[in-house]
Amino acid sequence: MRLDPIVGRKVLIAEDRAKRPNDYSPIVFAGESFASSGATAGACPFCAGHEHQTPPSLVEMLDEQGRWQVRVVANKFPAVSGSPAENPAENLPGDFQPRPVESVLPAPQQALGVQEVVIESPQHVRDFSDLSLHQVAAVLQVYRERLRHWADEGRLRHALAFKNVGLAAGASLEHIHGQLMALPYVPTAVAEELAGAGRYYDRRGKCVFCQLVQEEFQQRVRLVAEEGPFVAFCAYAGRQPYETWILPTAHAPRFERLTDQESMSLAKIFQQVLGRLGHQLSPLSYNLILHTSPFQGDCEDYYHWHWELIPRTCPLAGLEWGAGVFINPLSPEQAARLLQKVKI
Amino acid sequence: MRLDPIVGRKVLIAEDRAKRPNDYSPIVFAGESFASSGATAGACPFCAGHEHQTPPSLVEMLDEQGRWQVRVVANKFPAVSGSPAENPAENLPGDFQPRPVESVLPAPQQALGVQEVVIESPQHVRDFSDLSLHQVAAVLQVYRERLRHWADEGRLRHALAFKNVGLAAGASLEHIHGQLMALPYVPTAVAEELAGAGRYYDRRGKCVFCQLVQEEFQQRVRLVAEEGPFVAFCAYAGRQPYETWILPTAHAPRFERLTDQESMSLAKIFQQVLGRLGHQLSPLSYNLILHTSPFQGDCEDYYHWHWELIPRTCPLAGLEWGAGVFINPLSPEQAARLLQKVKI
Repeated sequence: MRLDPIVGRKVLIAEDRAKRPNDYSPIVFAGESFASSGATAGACPFCAGHEHQTPPSLVEMLDEQGRWQVRVVANKFPAVSGSPAENPAENLPGDFQPRPVESVLPAPQQALGVQEVVIESPQHVRDFSDLSLHQVAAVLQVYRERLRHWADEGRLRHALAFKNVGLAAGASLEHIHGQLMALPYVPTAVAEELAGAGRYYDRRGKCVFCQLVQEEFQQRVRLVAEEGPFVAFCAYAGRQPYETWILPTAHAPRFERLTDQESMSLAKIFQQVLGRLGHQLSPLSYNLILHTSPFQGDCEDYYHWHWELIPRTCPLAGLEWGAGVFINPLSPEQAARLLQKVKI
Repeated sequence: MRLDPIVGRKVLIAEDRAKRPNDYSPIVFAGESFASSGATAGACPFCAGHEHQTPPSLVEMLDEQGRWQVRVVANKFPAVSGSPAENPAENLPGDFQPRPVESVLPAPQQALGVQEVVIESPQHVRDFSDLSLHQVAAVLQVYRERLRHWADEGRLRHALAFKNVGLAAGASLEHIHGQLMALPYVPTAVAEELAGAGRYYDRRGKCVFCQLVQEEFQQRVRLVAEEGPFVAFCAYAGRQPYETWILPTAHAPRFERLTDQESMSLAKIFQQVLGRLGHQLSPLSYNLILHTSPFQGDCEDYYHWHWELIPRTCPLAGLEWGAGVFINPLSPEQAARLLQKVKI
């Protein structure tokens, strides 16, 4: 792990990752091609029967015949590895670690953390839309279990659950899967949200996400779906066409507390939203990422877990990438109207 | 312009931009395809003779026969428009504008600013490598002139110059061009660098970029090219393979002060770096963005202009996009070695 000398941004350098198998176009650099396109065709390491091609299961969710329905394995090409030995608050790179004054190029640190792959079906399918409702709920329960596991373990500070679906979203394998990355620090995007939500709470004594949900229900112009205790709406300041947030309507700081019953409603709203998106965008490529509270800390009252779903319709260009200026060519209200119109 | 309700991130909603012409794959959303692929083949609006297809020239750099070599025109599909009428420090969304307390969804504001296109050659070529050294220097002088123009105009706070080259970099047209976006606020990425550089200056009384250049010359493991007063090196915490920064070795806060002689050296180093990159990555797609000081403000002593060149080899995935965690599968030292080895 390196810190940018100017802004302190964390970057993980992971050269082994270039060697991972790839169903899509090979990534070419260094004058040679690592991992050929369609490398896994007919021999997908995530399909039932090919378990020997992956590391052993850390967790399996079994059906009544004892066959796995969801498996969790260590990422074979991780960008982070190793857990801190002690209390993370004491001996680890914190979020606001002061940079050494001697050099602006401090020695790289070990990129600590845990990276796991969640294989979301024994079948070679692509998306939640291809799974039964119960299977999606089981997948969501597995993410919850892994978050609980790393929260209980006590040496890491935060975990991200995320999915990259499709080539345009940066996926390397087609078989339905997601990832979990547990880190000894709070990643930038979550830290920024914690700071913003904390400021709002100090001023108004209320969770900003709860307030947002309330206003979205009042305005009703960006709503995409409602399902039991969950709501999905196009983000008011969405960075890309159809950026959609999915979250509980009632205050809920930790995804670890999701009940089994809630996981069914959450599965339903995911299938609804993805079904509608798939009708507008085909093939649908997207990033889906869970933002939830750090394992420790006092944000219970003001942070609120949510999934950010970002369909990838256009590559990021210089402005977004190099200046943090986002241009979205489709208004969230128009996006919501188009999604509401879809008959599913 | 909308502010994200949680973190305050600025997003420009610009629905007209979906209608711009496109040489590459059409962007499909809303169930229909806007602008067909190869829309401009044989009728490229940027080629000499097709000037009627673009807005009129704001500036032209002419050759001895009076033919334009570089033209600047207003962007026909801008995401920003209109200048503030008064002192921007008083009446405009500043960088740290407090969000209204009544609602977390304040009414959108007009996205003020200026967006211009720099047509960098009358010929239908793709990259700086296809231009003469003098032509590249002329292009750089035009960027300098437009920065001076908007600095003198006095109503905007900052301007970004940037280029998107190739489909993977988000370009819509192939003909060599760049853009200028002048804004009434300092964009996020530059604001973050200003803050980081300011903190370093407060602690050490020195420009952090000057210190960085000094250490890069001492270590010599990431250098890619040196040319007169300029140096290029792979960024220590590069976010993507081959991320390269190009900057003056001596302190220089404002690109507006580039001399004509310096523009020749800068053209040379660009051609060297792009030649080396083009040998490793083909076709080479990249984003190139200038970070320079805001027009007003007291950062003269601690900010230092630089171009960030980011070849696009892989799409951003969920971690980068949704969590601000960057994984780079090629170390900057290895990237620099590979670039140094290229015979050009």
